[in-house]
Amino acid sequence: MLVFILNAGSSSLKYQLMNPVTKEVLASGICERIGIDGILRHEFEDRELKLDANLPTHKEAIELVLRTLTSGEGKVIDSIDDIQAIGHRVAHGGEAFKKSTLVDDSVIEKIEELIPLAPLHNPANIMGIKICQELMPDKPNVAVFDTVFHQTMPDYAYMYALPYDQYKKYKIRKYGFHGTSHYYVSNEARSMLDKKRNTRIIVCHLGNGSSVTAVLNGKSIDTSMGLTPVQGLMMGTRAGDVGVGAIRYMMKQEGLDIDQVTNIMNKKSGILGISGKSSDLREVLEGMQQGDERCRLAVDMVAYNIKKYVGSYVAALDGVDALCFTGGIGENSALIREIVCTGLDGMGLVLDPIKNNKKKHNARDIATNSSAARIFVIPTNEEYVIAHDTYDVVREFAD
Amino acid sequence: MLVFILNAGSSSLKYQLMNPVTKEVLASGICERIGIDGILRHEFEDRELKLDANLPTHKEAIELVLRTLTSGEGKVIDSIDDIQAIGHRVAHGGEAFKKSTLVDDSVIEKIEELIPLAPLHNPANIMGIKICQELMPDKPNVAVFDTVFHQTMPDYAYMYALPYDQYKKYKIRKYGFHGTSHYYVSNEARSMLDKKRNTRIIVCHLGNGSSVTAVLNGKSIDTSMGLTPVQGLMMGTRAGDVGVGAIRYMMKQEGLDIDQVTNIMNKKSGILGISGKSSDLREVLEGMQQGDERCRLAVDMVAYNIKKYVGSYVAALDGVDALCFTGGIGENSALIREIVCTGLDGMGLVLDPIKNNKKKHNARDIATNSSAARIFVIPTNEEYVIAHDTYDVVREFAD
Repeated sequence: MLVFILNAGSSSLKYQLMNPVTKEVLASGICERIGIDGILRHEFEDRELKLDANLPTHKEAIELVLRTLTSGEGKVIDSIDDIQAIGHRVAHGGEAFKKSTLVDDSVIEKIEELIPLAPLHNPANIMGIKICQELMPDKPNVAVFDTVFHQTMPDYAYMYALPYDQYKKYKIRKYGFHGTSHYYVSNEARSMLDKKRNTRIIVCHLGNGSSVTAVLNGKSIDTSMGLTPVQGLMMGTRAGDVGVGAIRYMMKQEGLDIDQVTNIMNKKSGILGISGKSSDLREVLEGMQQGDERCRLAVDMVAYNIKKYVGSYVAALDGVDALCFTGGIGENSALIREIVCTGLDGMGLVLDPIKNNKKKHNARDIATNSSAARIFVIPTNEEYVIAHDTYDVVREFAD
Repeated sequence: MLVFILNAGSSSLKYQLMNPVTKEVLASGICERIGIDGILRHEFEDRELKLDANLPTHKEAIELVLRTLTSGEGKVIDSIDDIQAIGHRVAHGGEAFKKSTLVDDSVIEKIEELIPLAPLHNPANIMGIKICQELMPDKPNVAVFDTVFHQTMPDYAYMYALPYDQYKKYKIRKYGFHGTSHYYVSNEARSMLDKKRNTRIIVCHLGNGSSVTAVLNGKSIDTSMGLTPVQGLMMGTRAGDVGVGAIRYMMKQEGLDIDQVTNIMNKKSGILGISGKSSDLREVLEGMQQGDERCRLAVDMVAYNIKKYVGSYVAALDGVDALCFTGGIGENSALIREIVCTGLDGMGLVLDPIKNNKKKHNARDIATNSSAARIFVIPTNEEYVIAHDTYDVVREFAD
């Protein structure tokens, strides 16, 4: 059993070939600059193959990936027939999708209807699905949504306090994202806890995009992102929470329209906007160590922001059993974890500074032995969730 | 020593005549419908006088108030000379004002410069000051700002994660409001605590407008409102926190511009928007008891929203010594206090349901005796802060 996992963006394409039972990854890679020229980076057996290519559309890109998987230097399988199913990451499932779903025409139609909610991502995701249907007509495609895990939120958590009609007419509400990551990490955390009932877990997915989720008994009850991913935490280039008064004031002062200001809040804000240096926290941490005051401010803001979300979710969960860090920053920045956890002792979260600073890559507990709640670092594995969901859906369908 | 306290709005005018040392209120009242026709409600010695009047501008309104204070049925003083100073509530002091300030021309100029940040309130406040200067040229005027108490926030709390230039050029940042109330209540709470050092207090000011503030050793370190009062908690008609993605989506769907959407978020959202019934929580609580599902949702959202802010500020303060409720809802709704506090036990906040449900009007402790932290209900007194600050500033100036 092998699942081909596809994450199609507007000009890029990430893929993995995985055994969803053993978690073994046969190959993974990315096509970039699709429509411009084209590059393929293909990783397999601890090697990387880099190819310049002519990729006018996603179709040529997927063809190249399938060719690379089955022939030449990067070959890992004999034929496309070794692939049993294709799992597609789909950004926005709105309220229409409550679980990962086998793709048919009506499913594609529904994902298309959700394009207004995710105008950049859903069209690319649909394109990926349609090309796979064309190139591999006998393989089942499964759509795995970034929003599905959060569909268990109660109404008082997902509603905005806007006129109710806005929800009724346009489904304006919080959806949340990074669902596969929050699911994976909270699930791992549950298995690492002694406690099996009433598990209260907070997951901080901190990467280029960042979000925090409160997970009660395996179900998301609140998350920091909203209708779109710009809400919530301060991120690499995204602003996170900003009041409408400030948004309006910025528009008036600069003569901007809502598209322009949204673009600034998505691409020029966050760590990049405050530091003026980089969207990459590693560079900003370096800047701070060299005495750059705006880098210091960016780091303080990032950590303070996360800390406040953690506090609010401890309140929402009526306590906490495990706080989890994942994603590039969450897994690698001991300093951010330390600042976030400082002062959370009263909530039962006591970080062990020695454990926190050990450079390890496995899932681990970095709380002191006597800490009432656990603090985990858990490397995320969104592809595994996509592969495993795909496997489950296909088996269910076959039964 | 008597201070005349003035809170001038765009078509209304609130006033009090108070002794800032004894806290005694000689009279209080409101002029409404200024510029339309005019009504004065004047309260003194447990009586209310209601007058229909012709009030084309705020000048006639203030003249009427002064006449009512010194003559006829509502008379409480012999002459205007009994007033030693005038204390003006001013909405926005920006970063220019770090304390209550004796008014001179340069102060008026600075408040005028801040009009873009508070286009509805500051002009009315300036008008009130100028009329008092004209009618009582020998009396000192003191400006007491709603924002000043929050000027102690650290940068990582008041900055938005927007491009840094937006702060540098236009001072776009969080300011916070209800400063006199948060100051008064947190100060009362400190005096009610046994602990005198490292006091960590959270104040929930819940009225028609609502905000939460974290107060460390008497200083505001974070607050829920932002550049304008629309941010933070869900309120009577204000939306509170909404992501820019949702704002943009609503604008596109309905063909609204930013002024229209801001207006909706200020006047048609919050409790009114969700319940569709009323902006008054009392009516919505009744609706809920009668089984109205949208009233239930509004109440759940209000309480959940407050609870999350409390949790985030417990994290920001590294713990909590007292959680305080004030304002119309905070002082009177036992049910909201109960839902907010449910599940905060882990943070040391344990509500005593019997104490919580006693109908009292004084400052009181409603936590269980064994609760690690206190839960206080404290009636706010913003006028007292204005009167007392005015008294202090005038004395300082006289020295």
